[in-house]
Amino acid sequence: DVAAGEAAARERLTRMTVPPGALGQVAEVGVQLSGLAGDCPPPVPEPAVVAVFAGDHGVHAQGVTPWPQEVTHQMVANFLAGGAAVNAFATQVGAEVVVVDVGVAASLDPAPGLLPRKIRPGTADMTMGPAMTLAEARAAVVAGVEVARDLVAAGNRLLVTGDMGIANTTASAALVSAFTGTSPEVVTGRGTGIDDATLARKAAVIRTALSRHGLLPSPPREGNPDATRALESSPHAAADDPLGALAAVGGLEIAGIAGLLLGGAALRTPVVVDGVVAGAAALVAAALAPNASQAWIAGHRSVEPAHTLALAHLGLEPLLDLGMRVGEGTGALLAAPLVAAAARALAEVATFDSAGVADKNTTPEAGS
Amino acid sequence: DVAAGEAAARERLTRMTVPPGALGQVAEVGVQLSGLAGDCPPPVPEPAVVAVFAGDHGVHAQGVTPWPQEVTHQMVANFLAGGAAVNAFATQVGAEVVVVDVGVAASLDPAPGLLPRKIRPGTADMTMGPAMTLAEARAAVVAGVEVARDLVAAGNRLLVTGDMGIANTTASAALVSAFTGTSPEVVTGRGTGIDDATLARKAAVIRTALSRHGLLPSPPREGNPDATRALESSPHAAADDPLGALAAVGGLEIAGIAGLLLGGAALRTPVVVDGVVAGAAALVAAALAPNASQAWIAGHRSVEPAHTLALAHLGLEPLLDLGMRVGEGTGALLAAPLVAAAARALAEVATFDSAGVADKNTTPEAGS
Repeated sequence: DVAAGEAAARERLTRMTVPPGALGQVAEVGVQLSGLAGDCPPPVPEPAVVAVFAGDHGVHAQGVTPWPQEVTHQMVANFLAGGAAVNAFATQVGAEVVVVDVGVAASLDPAPGLLPRKIRPGTADMTMGPAMTLAEARAAVVAGVEVARDLVAAGNRLLVTGDMGIANTTASAALVSAFTGTSPEVVTGRGTGIDDATLARKAAVIRTALSRHGLLPSPPREGNPDATRALESSPHAAADDPLGALAAVGGLEIAGIAGLLLGGAALRTPVVVDGVVAGAAALVAAALAPNASQAWIAGHRSVEPAHTLALAHLGLEPLLDLGMRVGEGTGALLAAPLVAAAARALAEVATFDSAGVADKNTTPEAGS
Repeated sequence: DVAAGEAAARERLTRMTVPPGALGQVAEVGVQLSGLAGDCPPPVPEPAVVAVFAGDHGVHAQGVTPWPQEVTHQMVANFLAGGAAVNAFATQVGAEVVVVDVGVAASLDPAPGLLPRKIRPGTADMTMGPAMTLAEARAAVVAGVEVARDLVAAGNRLLVTGDMGIANTTASAALVSAFTGTSPEVVTGRGTGIDDATLARKAAVIRTALSRHGLLPSPPREGNPDATRALESSPHAAADDPLGALAAVGGLEIAGIAGLLLGGAALRTPVVVDGVVAGAAALVAAALAPNASQAWIAGHRSVEPAHTLALAHLGLEPLLDLGMRVGEGTGALLAAPLVAAAARALAEVATFDSAGVADKNTTPEAGS
């Protein structure tokens, strides 16, 4: 029972040998984990595993990034060889790395740590038609749910989202625009580091795609000069048909992550959410299952503007804000020890009574 | 050689299979560690140890906190029994906890993990006279330097500052006021959570003490209504005589932490700096040895206003900002895995060449 677990955690926090309120956001994570477990202290969420969902994007053909599409495949090989940032950070925090091929536009050889779940070899170009069919989007989400199930069955107690897909900040920004009602020009960021001309083209591509699929937020009303605000006149087409929006302008790895987020929530297993690609997936997943976000912890805030918009829309407060924009799950992995520390504090910190420490609340005359 | 290590790190960052600039603040920590090591990759800074310096404060008699002074002693016992937040977080990140008694106002029994280095049993009341003599302040700093030496000799490669001392946010705020030229009313915070009346008394106590010792920043000039700005007319009495300021309004544990910061820097061992008490110590240490801050990494930003002022004065950017105000070293401990991850990334992430990943810089025609 979520409420009972949260209440037990809040009560315990008042008795722990820590000044009241002094654990800040760490305490809030502890309360969340207790709610998820329906008990306090919650289990320490270890071991952790990062599932890196990989897929390619037809919209790459529109020139939204200077990186060749082959880099998706090459980076997957790098993950499997242990040579990427996600591997270094996973080693540091004691997490396992698995790569889920839901849509790489190349045939991958079997390898330890690679889960072959390819739905199709990359999406279609969202400016020409839907990125994928509804059935494909659904299948990719289901693949993610099943990955969560298998990873938890294998003993993992903390799931971490990861992603790889050249051009996937374009698909993510498109989804964030559609779900938050924010204009393409505001949501679009520099991804891996594009120049001004590419940034303008990327925003125009997103606008074209959203318009084609009936997902473009309405323009600001007359007299409202603040174009960065969510547009109240948005038709909410994405919220009404999240799977349709995902199929139209999303990505296979985004769908897979949405599935992981739903699967983790269904299994009451906490999921640390990485950057803008995971944020877009979380918008889809939250629209499909509003209560699922109880299981989600925002690992970090990436520098992509769409990520901040997604986090605000989801009501998630990130643990880290380090100016990172790597993807792969790197930011969320760095937050994993903080999540575990939150549970451990509830389990291991003594109470004032048990430690023989005077509580200021019980000695009101002291100190003055 | 610092410059060579930093340059090697910046060069390596351009070849790693990570988008340029995408590691944000983690990359900057890696550059700093490389500078400190004079080489890239720097060693992964493990194992870590948190040294919790403990001392009592004569200013407690002025009613600056509702907590009884005995809580310092009781919390030291809690640390040694493994029951405090610092213990839980240290367990989580794989760090050892040592407690250094530089000035607890009680006789402590020998115990594993306790380093007996008492200079005096608590400071004197800074509103009545200096908190300690210059010789005592110097001895407490030397004790901290020696603790750094011994902990590094024992094999530790990352030092983490910790503190315990009821009323020590009063001494810390006084030092921050003196070193940054900010008025007592602006620097003073709620510490463990005091009410409005106690907050006003605490600020008045700090003003009295600073005034008595010739350390009170000059009032704002006429026509400058912004009382929160550092006062340009500050006499810099503290900067000119940092040990004198430490003796006048500081604390024994603050002096010990200043020594740890200096000792770590001298041994080219990185030191993760905790909250406001460590921030005050860092102001003293930086005034004594301006280059020492090359070895310091700000672990987190506490909610105490004096901490933000100290970090800005020192030019340190904290890794975490979680709304914490526990002390003990808790915030810095949570940052330790991030520091280690920064070094590990430089050591373990493959280059574009070695991983066979196309670099956008070498394929300018791609993607458009």
